[in-house]
Amino acid sequence: MLKILTSIVCILVSCSAFAQNDVKEDSIILKKIYSTSLLNGNSYQWLDYLSNQIGGRLSGSINAQLAVEWAEKELKKIGIDKVWLQPVMVPKWTRGVTEFAYIETEPGKTTNVPICALGGSVPTFIGGTKAPIIEVKHLSDLEKLGIDQVKGKIVFYNRPMQADLISTFSAYGGCVDQRYSGAAEAAKYGAVGVIVRSMNLRKDDFPHTGSMSYGTLKNKDKIPAAAISTNGADLLSSMLKLNPNIKFNFNMNCRTWKDVQSYNVIGQITGTTLPNEYMVVGGHLDSWDLGDGSHDDGAGVVQSMEVLRLLKEIGYKPKRTIRVVLFMNEENGLRGGKKYAAVAKNKGENHVFALESDAGGFTPRGFSFDCDTANFDQIKSWKPLFEPYLIHYFVKGRSGADIGPLKKEKMVLAGLRPDSQRYFDYHHAKNDTFDAVNKRELELGAATMTSLVYLFDTYGVK
Amino acid sequence: MLKILTSIVCILVSCSAFAQNDVKEDSIILKKIYSTSLLNGNSYQWLDYLSNQIGGRLSGSINAQLAVEWAEKELKKIGIDKVWLQPVMVPKWTRGVTEFAYIETEPGKTTNVPICALGGSVPTFIGGTKAPIIEVKHLSDLEKLGIDQVKGKIVFYNRPMQADLISTFSAYGGCVDQRYSGAAEAAKYGAVGVIVRSMNLRKDDFPHTGSMSYGTLKNKDKIPAAAISTNGADLLSSMLKLNPNIKFNFNMNCRTWKDVQSYNVIGQITGTTLPNEYMVVGGHLDSWDLGDGSHDDGAGVVQSMEVLRLLKEIGYKPKRTIRVVLFMNEENGLRGGKKYAAVAKNKGENHVFALESDAGGFTPRGFSFDCDTANFDQIKSWKPLFEPYLIHYFVKGRSGADIGPLKKEKMVLAGLRPDSQRYFDYHHAKNDTFDAVNKRELELGAATMTSLVYLFDTYGVK
Repeated sequence: MLKILTSIVCILVSCSAFAQNDVKEDSIILKKIYSTSLLNGNSYQWLDYLSNQIGGRLSGSINAQLAVEWAEKELKKIGIDKVWLQPVMVPKWTRGVTEFAYIETEPGKTTNVPICALGGSVPTFIGGTKAPIIEVKHLSDLEKLGIDQVKGKIVFYNRPMQADLISTFSAYGGCVDQRYSGAAEAAKYGAVGVIVRSMNLRKDDFPHTGSMSYGTLKNKDKIPAAAISTNGADLLSSMLKLNPNIKFNFNMNCRTWKDVQSYNVIGQITGTTLPNEYMVVGGHLDSWDLGDGSHDDGAGVVQSMEVLRLLKEIGYKPKRTIRVVLFMNEENGLRGGKKYAAVAKNKGENHVFALESDAGGFTPRGFSFDCDTANFDQIKSWKPLFEPYLIHYFVKGRSGADIGPLKKEKMVLAGLRPDSQRYFDYHHAKNDTFDAVNKRELELGAATMTSLVYLFDTYGVK
Repeated sequence: MLKILTSIVCILVSCSAFAQNDVKEDSIILKKIYSTSLLNGNSYQWLDYLSNQIGGRLSGSINAQLAVEWAEKELKKIGIDKVWLQPVMVPKWTRGVTEFAYIETEPGKTTNVPICALGGSVPTFIGGTKAPIIEVKHLSDLEKLGIDQVKGKIVFYNRPMQADLISTFSAYGGCVDQRYSGAAEAAKYGAVGVIVRSMNLRKDDFPHTGSMSYGTLKNKDKIPAAAISTNGADLLSSMLKLNPNIKFNFNMNCRTWKDVQSYNVIGQITGTTLPNEYMVVGGHLDSWDLGDGSHDDGAGVVQSMEVLRLLKEIGYKPKRTIRVVLFMNEENGLRGGKKYAAVAKNKGENHVFALESDAGGFTPRGFSFDCDTANFDQIKSWKPLFEPYLIHYFVKGRSGADIGPLKKEKMVLAGLRPDSQRYFDYHHAKNDTFDAVNKRELELGAATMTSLVYLFDTYGVK
C-alpha cells in the first residue's frame, strides 16, 4: 500500500514538474516567435509588394492572377515542403469606368455625390438611371410603403452603423442587409435602382463597395445598386427633407462575365509524426478593386504566409501537417473556400484545426473559436502564455468565411480578432491601402497566429 | 441565539443583494457613459479645434496662450460649478527658422538629412556647426573612447528603440537617455555637437524632438543637440562605415528666453456629500511645436474635459469634488504639475485620486496604477465591469508626469493606457496631427476614464 501511495505521489510530482516545464518551454517559444516577427519579420515587406506592386485583385482580374503567381513564388522561396495551386472557377465582374451620381433639385441644378457600384450589380441605363428617390431605414419599410410609393423610384437605404456597439463587426452585421439584399427587395416593389449608405462609421467621402445578391430575381428584373459615401448619404437625406421631389441620377457600366479559371495558393510543411492531421492557416488573396486591399485581406494573406516562415525560422518542426491556404474569391462567391473543403473531403484529409485572419492588420486582441467545450477549456488554459503580448480576448464565436466550409465535429475553427475600431474606415473602399497598415501591428498579428498554431500542434485537438 | 443567527443571515442576504444591485447599476451607468461618448461625444470636435485652429502650443508661445483661453471658454460652456486659471511661470524656448543639416563626404559633395533641434538646445554657430562625426550606441561608450577621440567632433547617438518589446513605452524608456543626457555627457569629452537618432520605431523621414538637459554645464560649455530622422540615422551610419572621415554640418538658431506667465486651466464639479475630497483628471495643454500635438497631448486634454461633460450629460452628481486640470508645460519643465501640487498642499486640499491621459488617443486597453494593495484589490474587483469594453489591462506602475507631484499615502494615481503600437510613430514629430487620431478610439478612451472616475467616486479610496 505504501508502495502504491509512493508511486502515486511520484507520478503526481513528475506530472506537475512536467507541466511546469512545458509552460516554461512554451513561453520561451512564444517569446522567440514574437521577437522574430518584430525584429526579423517578412510580413510587412510582402504586404508592400502585394499592395503597391500588384494592388486591388478582384476575382477573375489580371491582378488576381498576378497575386496567385506572386504568392506561389514567395512561398517557394521560404523552403517549405510543398507549394501548389488548386484550380477553382470564379465569377468575374468588372466595374467599368468610374461611376458618377448627382442629386437634381430642379432641371439643371445638380450636386455631385460620391458613389460606387456594389459588387455584382447590373449597370444603369446608358447615360444614367434618373428617378425620384425615397429614403428608408429598413428593408421592411418597403412593405409599409407599398408598391404605390416605391414603383419607379430609386430606394435609398440610409440606416447607419450603430456607433455605440464596441465591436464594429457587430455594427456591420446590424446593417449589411441593406447592401446585400436591398436591391432584390426593392425590385419586388418596382424600384428602378438602389442607393445604400456605405458601411462606414466615419463621416467621409469614400463609398464602400461589397457583395450583394439579387436572390431569385430574373435578369430582366434586376436593378442597379450603388453605395454612397456617408457624407453623401447625410447630404442626400437632408436635401430630401427639404424637398421630397428631388431626383437622383447615377451612371454605372459594370458587367458580369463568364466564370474564369483561378486558383487557391497552398503551401505545406509536412508533419513529422502526425502528417495525416492537417492544420490550416489562411486569408483570402482576392480583394475588392477600389483600394489595394491591404487590410482586407492582404494583411491576412501575408500573416498566414508568415506563420509558416516563422515556424521554419525558429526551427520548429511541427508534428502535424501545417498548411497555408490563400483562398481565392472570398469577396464575391467564396468559391475558393468551398473548393478547398470539397477537395479535402474528397481526399479524406483529416483537418483538425483551421485559423483565418480576415479582420484587418490591426493590433491583435485575441481569437474567436468555433469549437467544443473541451477544446475551449484547453485554449483558456493557454491564456497566461499570451498575457505578455496583451492578447486577452478568447471567445466562442465565428471563425472565418473561407474556413467555414471545413467545419466538422472534433475540429477547431478560429478567427484572429484584431482591434476593430478602425476596420470599417477602410473596408472595401479606396483608402484600404498599404499606408493604413502599421508594421508592428501586422507583425504582432502574425506572431499571435503562429503562437496558436504552435500550441495546437504541440498539444493537439481534444 | 436563533434570533441572532436569523439577523446575521438577513444581514448577509441583504449585503449580497445590495452588492448585486450595485454591480447591475454600475454596469448600466458604464453603458450609459460609453454610449454617450460614442453617440454624442464632444472630445473629437474639441480636438479638431485645438489641433486645427490652434495647433502646436509649446509653453510660452502665443498658441499656448490661445489654448489656455480656448480651454477656459469651453469648460465654462459645459456648465460645471467653477472654472479658473492657475498662474504658473513657464520656460520659453523657440526653434527659430527651420533647421538644416547635411553630411559632407568631401568639400562640395553633400547629402541633406532631416533634423530638428531638441527642446532646450543652444543654437549652432551662425551658418552651422561643422565637424567630423563619431557614432556611439551608449552614453558610456564616450568613456571608452576618451577625450582624444571625441574632442572637436559631433557625437552621433544611434541606439534604436528595441522593436521586440511589446510596450513601445518600455522601448522608449530604454533609449531616451541619449536624447535627454546625450549633450551634457558629450560636452564633458569636448564634443562640439550632438545628433540623436529619433525615438521612433518606424523608418521614416520625420525627426522627433523632445526635452533634453544640460545638467550642471555652464552656459559656455553647452553644445547644440538635434534629432535626426530614423532614415537619416541609418543613412548617416552606413556612410560613416564607408568613410569614417565624413563631416556633419547642422544649423539651428533656437533660443531660450526669460520665463513667461502662463496658466493651468482648471474646471470643477463640486461634490455633494464629500466636497473636501478631490479627484483630478487631466492631461497637458502644452505640446511640442512641430506637429499640432493631437496625440501628445491634445487627446488627453479633450478626454479629460469630456470626463466632466459626460458626468453632467448622464446626470451623475458626484459625491466628491471632481476637477479637470489641463496642465501647462509638461513637455519641457513640468511647471504646471508642480504648481498644481504645491497650491493643493498649501491649501490643505485632500486629493484622494488623480488620473492622467498622456499616452495618445488610441484604443484604450486599461490603466496603470500607483497605489497600495487595498486599492488595487478594489480596482481588480471592477475588472468584469470593463470587460464588455475590452478593457483588460490593470497593472501597478507609473501614472502620469503631471499628477506625479500630488503623490502621497492613501491616494490613487492612475494613467490611462491606450494601445501603444503607433504612439512613437507620431510622438514629438511633425506628423502628430489630427488626422492621426481616430474618433472612436478617442471617445472610447474618454468613456474609460469617466467610468473609472465614476467607480472611485462611488466606492471611495480605501
